[in-house]
Amino acid sequence: MKFKVFSQLNYEVLGPTTFIFNLQVVPTASQLILEELLTSSPHIKLEEFTSSAAEARFIKLFVPKKMQFTINYSATVNLYYKMIDERVLNTMAPILKMDADVIPYLFPSRYCQSDKLEKLATKEFGYLSNDYCKAAAINDWIYNNVEYLGGFTTSSTSAQDTLTERVGVCRDFAHLGIALCRALSIPARYFTAYAYNLNPPDFHACFEAYIGGQWIFFDPTKLVPANGLVKIANGRDAADASVASIFGNAYCTALNVGCISADENFKPFLTENTESQKGLSYQ
Amino acid sequence: MKFKVFSQLNYEVLGPTTFIFNLQVVPTASQLILEELLTSSPHIKLEEFTSSAAEARFIKLFVPKKMQFTINYSATVNLYYKMIDERVLNTMAPILKMDADVIPYLFPSRYCQSDKLEKLATKEFGYLSNDYCKAAAINDWIYNNVEYLGGFTTSSTSAQDTLTERVGVCRDFAHLGIALCRALSIPARYFTAYAYNLNPPDFHACFEAYIGGQWIFFDPTKLVPANGLVKIANGRDAADASVASIFGNAYCTALNVGCISADENFKPFLTENTESQKGLSYQ
Amino acid sequence: MKFKVFSQLNYEVLGPTTFIFNLQVVPTASQLILEELLTSSPHIKLEEFTSSAAEARFIKLFVPKKMQFTINYSATVNLYYKMIDERVLNTMAPILKMDADVIPYLFPSRYCQSDKLEKLATKEFGYLSNDYCKAAAINDWIYNNVEYLGGFTTSSTSAQDTLTERVGVCRDFAHLGIALCRALSIPARYFTAYAYNLNPPDFHACFEAYIGGQWIFFDPTKLVPANGLVKIANGRDAADASVASIFGNAYCTALNVGCISADENFKPFLTENTESQKGLSYQ
Amino acid sequence: MKFKVFSQLNYEVLGPTTFIFNLQVVPTASQLILEELLTSSPHIKLEEFTSSAAEARFIKLFVPKKMQFTINYSATVNLYYKMIDERVLNTMAPILKMDADVIPYLFPSRYCQSDKLEKLATKEFGYLSNDYCKAAAINDWIYNNVEYLGGFTTSSTSAQDTLTERVGVCRDFAHLGIALCRALSIPARYFTAYAYNLNPPDFHACFEAYIGGQWIFFDPTKLVPANGLVKIANGRDAADASVASIFGNAYCTALNVGCISADENFKPFLTENTESQKGLSYQ
Repeated sequence: MKFKVFSQLNYEVLGPTTFIFNLQVVPTASQLILEELLTSSPHIKLEEFTSSAAEARFIKLFVPKKMQFTINYSATVNLYYKMIDERVLNTMAPILKMDADVIPYLFPSRYCQSDKLEKLATKEFGYLSNDYCKAAAINDWIYNNVEYLGGFTTSSTSAQDTLTERVGVCRDFAHLGIALCRALSIPARYFTAYAYNLNPPDFHACFEAYIGGQWIFFDPTKLVPANGLVKIANGRDAADASVASIFGNAYCTALNVGCISADENFKPFLTENTESQKGLSYQ
Repeated sequence: MKFKVFSQLNYEVLGPTTFIFNLQVVPTASQLILEELLTSSPHIKLEEFTSSAAEARFIKLFVPKKMQFTINYSATVNLYYKMIDERVLNTMAPILKMDADVIPYLFPSRYCQSDKLEKLATKEFGYLSNDYCKAAAINDWIYNNVEYLGGFTTSSTSAQDTLTERVGVCRDFAHLGIALCRALSIPARYFTAYAYNLNPPDFHACFEAYIGGQWIFFDPTKLVPANGLVKIANGRDAADASVASIFGNAYCTALNVGCISADENFKPFLTENTESQKGLSYQ
Repeated sequence: MKFKVFSQLNYEVLGPTTFIFNLQVVPTASQLILEELLTSSPHIKLEEFTSSAAEARFIKLFVPKKMQFTINYSATVNLYYKMIDERVLNTMAPILKMDADVIPYLFPSRYCQSDKLEKLATKEFGYLSNDYCKAAAINDWIYNNVEYLGGFTTSSTSAQDTLTERVGVCRDFAHLGIALCRALSIPARYFTAYAYNLNPPDFHACFEAYIGGQWIFFDPTKLVPANGLVKIANGRDAADASVASIFGNAYCTALNVGCISADENFKPFLTENTESQKGLSYQ
Repeated sequence: MKFKVFSQLNYEVLGPTTFIFNLQVVPTASQLILEELLTSSPHIKLEEFTSSAAEARFIKLFVPKKMQFTINYSATVNLYYKMIDERVLNTMAPILKMDADVIPYLFPSRYCQSDKLEKLATKEFGYLSNDYCKAAAINDWIYNNVEYLGGFTTSSTSAQDTLTERVGVCRDFAHLGIALCRALSIPARYFTAYAYNLNPPDFHACFEAYIGGQWIFFDPTKLVPANGLVKIANGRDAADASVASIFGNAYCTALNVGCISADENFKPFLTENTESQKGLSYQ
């Protein structure tokens, strides 16, 4: 399936400021970048880099003085999600067999204090028969028990906060899903994306759980079709994969994000029908 | 300088349990492993691995059933710390020039919620003239304002807790140092080690701050000579570099750790004399 | 029903210390003190006082220097709990009609951050038909979802902590019950008592919810018969009704507490049979 | 000194809602209400009550259905603050001699977790020679170390949060002052008021510490002249003395508050000159 994605971020820069952006599509086995364009206005030299802490592409740049600054990105991407067979989903992946790269996703991180949630996760989900059932139950529990509502949380809100306050946005939903999976010794990671049909338009955040040796996709917000996500980054949580990190003095004045299908045959999954999406993977 | 280090951890294993250990000396430019021995009793197959999330050596193993289990490690290491020149310490390293591998250490992590401490860190230390002065002032502030006392903190205690509760152990001191540095946009990382003359004997935790392009060593506990640390791991915080992670049902019944000088010329630094240790690096 | 209660607290006093104790039985319509004796060893002048913040009797005394200090209390009490009629339990008591003395129990307190739990409480219990059903469901939920286990919580642990950590002692259970009731606009208060058959022996903490114009008793630990509690204090939470507050330098070396039936006809309620205890009140 | 105060609160009521307001001037030895008027539009029956938990006047009323609702209050007050003699300020008031009514202000409360701040408060302020010096140093420390800025805190923000986040409004400043005093065993209480010259106009929150047997006034915001405050309430913290508590479904659409001098001889204290205001009491 072909998608066109774009984002434009406008900043009022008040003094010398370094930006680190993470908004480019990441090349993976599931997505092929056909073309992309990254520009800034005024033109400032960008440096792209990758990091061992996240599967993502970062840009850094320095705005030396007070100005209005805009960064623009657009890409056309071929997307190939996989559906993982039920037998694989029901396979338990022992920690002893996990790849070294997977193991860090077992541990707590800034916004996902899984170390504090072991009893809770075990009590609520521990009785379920396998890791897939547990992760799917976590996903549904968040959807049913946390209210999707902007304005109540900040960039410092963590899974522990959301568990008691029961309100948040996609980022908070994802952090809670990750924390609960890890509390059950299921590796889980943060996933940011351009999302088809997200309303109001914005960057989206979901999570992946490592089940039967595969990274399986979950979106506890159920806001968008699960087969319309173009991945930007994986990381342990939003600390690893923030769209923009600002070192200096600047604030965002406008954000414009979109993801549209460029394929007339695209059949978006119905968000309610989780059964048909069982085992979807963007790995 | 030559050091001999050792550790022995005894566990009562109550059921099938996977262990991940991180207690071997890590090879770096500053330390050469002359010999080492890792054994378990009973003998269980160990698998060593490394992780992109930490500069460290991990071992994983599976204890299949109820038993008493012991892991033993010993090594002889040549240690070459460096003293970084004052001109380098006074150099500011702009984020734009930092290596990609350094940048993740700018971001908050599980036990180091630097995102919440920006105003505090700026108020307390922001006026200082350069990053070295700031990190050194942070180190002294922790030493002077946090009580070193066991039994008040747990493995879930974070820098934010320690900042208000003002009590903790080496791990808590290190987390607070890291969080405050990052809150000032100074990259900082966790450092676990075998420490000469630590009393009572245990694994030690300190931190490094990235200053003038170098990782500079700090130990806010001032418990041991700064030139007697044999590094086990670097990571973002204790979530990355836990000595032992246990997935299953087991608890530690005894811990025996040591670090002795094997070099008659070794002159331990006096812990009070921070001036003479200015710019020590184990990188 | 007649009960004999006693407590003995031994302290190692290391320097000048003021103690405030709250361990005497409080006279209420439900309990008549037949005899009581309060002594200290060595003998130190005690001053009894009451406080507008709690329905309780406090003692203050000053130990001027290093010594071992013991306080002893014993009492014989006639206890008359009431069973409130089901029609009353099903009556809603609008806030507009509440006595002024009840209203403070609607608001959050140190260990009961009800202001943070409104969405959670509404989601979990809001659908129930009346306040009694809600409070009873909260009581059962805590019993079923929080593990009763010593050593995991401290005197700083709050309802918000317990909600995520899911472990604690009677004090933590009571705080969580109170916080969840208040989050639903049901007044709730802390209740400390001597408890028949508590094992291991200790002071007990429960809670009362204000339903149909009556304070109804709940014990989410289900550790003791509900009809065997001799009340010491009511307060907003443990901050109001701590057994001992210490200003100075002293620590408890031994605690001996008991509550025995002095009435051969006493039939303790079975803790499981909550139906038969529906509407028990110690008001 | 004569002051005229007024407040008007407008609400959009969306369904049946009970309001509890606390915005009337409280009669004390320091302030005499010459005249006052409380009205609502539309006219709804108000019931005034007092509470053992706060020195304050409360109003409760019930708005039965969707409507716009306004409450209006105005009063003319004669204000007589006292200046407490330095010898009294330097007197230590032992807990043993405190009135029963003062003692609850020693204990932690919802927004003032003094139990967690004992080491910090002792380290920062414990060395000072008496309670007045400690409270005054706390007041100055907050003024110097916490940024006064709206929009960063909510009604759930507590002293512990403010201590690390270092930003807040008058309510947050007061909570932190109270928590630090109590952590040093100095009773402290919340104080809401109409404040002369507060800009932008709003209700104000400060605190009082119990020193030498007197409640001494402190305002760590230093936003208004200390001799121009007309007291509304005292309580343990904002949980006891919220201007408006809403049980139902309503939100505030406008707030209009003022406090003007009705006395041509009124000489407002300069806020910087804390020395001349030493020992001011509104008790």
